[in-house]
Amino acid sequence: MLFVQKFGGSSVATPDHIRRVAQKVKATLDEGHQVVVVVSAMGDTTDELVAKAEAVSDTRSGREMDVLLSTGEIQSTALMAMALEALGVPARSFTGRDAGILTDFDHGRARILAVHPQKLQEALAAGVTPVVAGFQGVNARDDVTTLGRGGSDLTAIALASALKADRCEIYSDVAGVFTADPRVVPAAVPLAQLSYDEMLELASQGAQVLQTQAVDYARGNGVVIHARSTFQDAPGTIIDHRGAATNQAVTAVALNKRIAKIGLKGVPDAPGVAAHLFEKLARHGINIDLVIQSLSHEQLNDIAFTVALDDAEAAERLSREALEELKGQGLVVDRNVAKVSAVGSGLLGRPGVAARLFRALADAGVNIQMIGTSEIKISCIIAREQAEVALSAIHEAFGLHESGRLETD
Amino acid sequence: MLFVQKFGGSSVATPDHIRRVAQKVKATLDEGHQVVVVVSAMGDTTDELVAKAEAVSDTRSGREMDVLLSTGEIQSTALMAMALEALGVPARSFTGRDAGILTDFDHGRARILAVHPQKLQEALAAGVTPVVAGFQGVNARDDVTTLGRGGSDLTAIALASALKADRCEIYSDVAGVFTADPRVVPAAVPLAQLSYDEMLELASQGAQVLQTQAVDYARGNGVVIHARSTFQDAPGTIIDHRGAATNQAVTAVALNKRIAKIGLKGVPDAPGVAAHLFEKLARHGINIDLVIQSLSHEQLNDIAFTVALDDAEAAERLSREALEELKGQGLVVDRNVAKVSAVGSGLLGRPGVAARLFRALADAGVNIQMIGTSEIKISCIIAREQAEVALSAIHEAFGLHESGRLETD
Repeated sequence: MLFVQKFGGSSVATPDHIRRVAQKVKATLDEGHQVVVVVSAMGDTTDELVAKAEAVSDTRSGREMDVLLSTGEIQSTALMAMALEALGVPARSFTGRDAGILTDFDHGRARILAVHPQKLQEALAAGVTPVVAGFQGVNARDDVTTLGRGGSDLTAIALASALKADRCEIYSDVAGVFTADPRVVPAAVPLAQLSYDEMLELASQGAQVLQTQAVDYARGNGVVIHARSTFQDAPGTIIDHRGAATNQAVTAVALNKRIAKIGLKGVPDAPGVAAHLFEKLARHGINIDLVIQSLSHEQLNDIAFTVALDDAEAAERLSREALEELKGQGLVVDRNVAKVSAVGSGLLGRPGVAARLFRALADAGVNIQMIGTSEIKISCIIAREQAEVALSAIHEAFGLHESGRLETD
Repeated sequence: MLFVQKFGGSSVATPDHIRRVAQKVKATLDEGHQVVVVVSAMGDTTDELVAKAEAVSDTRSGREMDVLLSTGEIQSTALMAMALEALGVPARSFTGRDAGILTDFDHGRARILAVHPQKLQEALAAGVTPVVAGFQGVNARDDVTTLGRGGSDLTAIALASALKADRCEIYSDVAGVFTADPRVVPAAVPLAQLSYDEMLELASQGAQVLQTQAVDYARGNGVVIHARSTFQDAPGTIIDHRGAATNQAVTAVALNKRIAKIGLKGVPDAPGVAAHLFEKLARHGINIDLVIQSLSHEQLNDIAFTVALDDAEAAERLSREALEELKGQGLVVDRNVAKVSAVGSGLLGRPGVAARLFRALADAGVNIQMIGTSEIKISCIIAREQAEVALSAIHEAFGLHESGRLETD
């Protein structure tokens, strides 16, 4: 079988880590399989390079940032190839360009347009294990591009698709996807299976196991992802189209504390008012998440929405502008909120789930400020100091501590 | 005019240094010139990468080491291009491959076979300042190669030759080539001019201003080198075919303390004896420097030679083998020696110079153990603890403290 095995920054953080990962790759080869290795930059390398660039210039061209940042992964490939060769495994490093990853021109968050993996196939045919730099490609001008934070996951999945690999294993320092962040909910357990849609909801809700774009690419190209721990021998989580093999309504819960809530009070209840506000935010690149509009009262409405905490300052300024233009009555900004979400394919068509969730929060003394739902998700905005209590309450209410059905070490 | 300006590792050691170098490049551009910038890796980056590789594996493939080490210079190019753009200077980073530097396959110490600088010329024609990664090229398989320690000097000189640049400026943290290492001889002064041959003798004698291979390339291609200080406004040293514009016999002195002396006593005075010994050393890649063979005494000879201190252990073992094979009488190994050298085109055909040098050492109480000469150099092996005394004595005897004829700051 052909495996793609991707190792994240914490898995290759030191020379010692790199040698242990090489042992792991060799173990797969020794079972008679072929492996394409994908690596991230070592530990905090990328952050350190960003800090240097920020110290050099306030205005950093996307091209030069990508030239700079792409070197971190290239270093990892050379070191990993050396570590494999030290174990007697013929190996060879490949940049994103060498691996045939062609992207668009959008530096810093390029999208993969095509993968031409001929050189990788030649290496495999010659019995050489390719070690590919994650997170990067080249555009049609042969300039290096990068795929954005977590882009090495996308590299692995795109290569697995192009090479028709039998497995795509994403290794990190956690043993797969959990029913909740185990640092917040100690009772959380790893999930054996998850659907792409569930993973996407969890990823965008704050779970940091896999990059959203990578999961989306896997869904679009039918790549089965196996999220595993590098240095623990746990079974990990399979992510595919099937979803959790469980009868439970909720598969997992997620928490996002990096949000802010903004409310405009007393704006006219007239067509185009919400559009005016949200177009203004969109023009400045600000994504809004949950939105509620209250019932009209004397021809006036309240509109509230949430944004990422990093966007709060800009969103507040733009909202104040909009409020004045709309002759509204007041602005409320709350930076002390959090979002708890329950995700599960089992939510579909089960009207009682939301009620059960609200009851769990009420019993825990948590007041719900806003509610948002999708087909497989319910999110609640609550006070940030109650975030952990709320997450644990939902986790317990849906019996998630029993749902992983996995032996963990 | 077209300038090539090369900045070494200490000149780009921090983001602050990089911004100051960018100001310097801009000053040249503001005078109406074009500049091709060549940069080394920041500070100790290369040493740090070597340490990581050594921690990963004992056997490091040349290809992977070159992939790894070449990233340091690439990081510098991206940061320097950003720093230039922050000053309003259109700039663009180039790898060795982008700059068209084609080398042989000898990883770690590749030789430049050809330079195809079309992309650099296109950038210059478009008003963009190219920033090129020193120390690297690609071989005919499109694999990255590196040119060996100090290889960024060679990159700059090769580009200056290929681009027919008007000037090739090599910037470092010293204000050019001095009559002696100023840390050893405080009276040392910078030289205004020096010939390629003098520079080569000084470089191989331990002066670390310019890489030997780079000076040799400049001599072969008629590139005039201007060695200057990055952050001092001193005139620096011109290195070309003309040599020092001085009537003095000696241009500069050099000191090398990283050597060892090995002597074989009482070997037969017969043809092939020296050949047997030195062929054995050569087969193991050990370069010998000075050699003396004593006058024959009862059909027996003594042979002594010097090697780099790093080679001393291997040389001792091989010499002991040779001694037994030749049925010689004894082996002497002295690791506490140093070599002082006086270099100058003016040595040619001036028989009194050697005597003057020996007199200076005698007056300083320094015993001479071995003597070696070339057309423009006299070297003496002495006890290492007298190295500094000896160097100062020669420097003073030839009046070098007056020879620079430069204003320094």
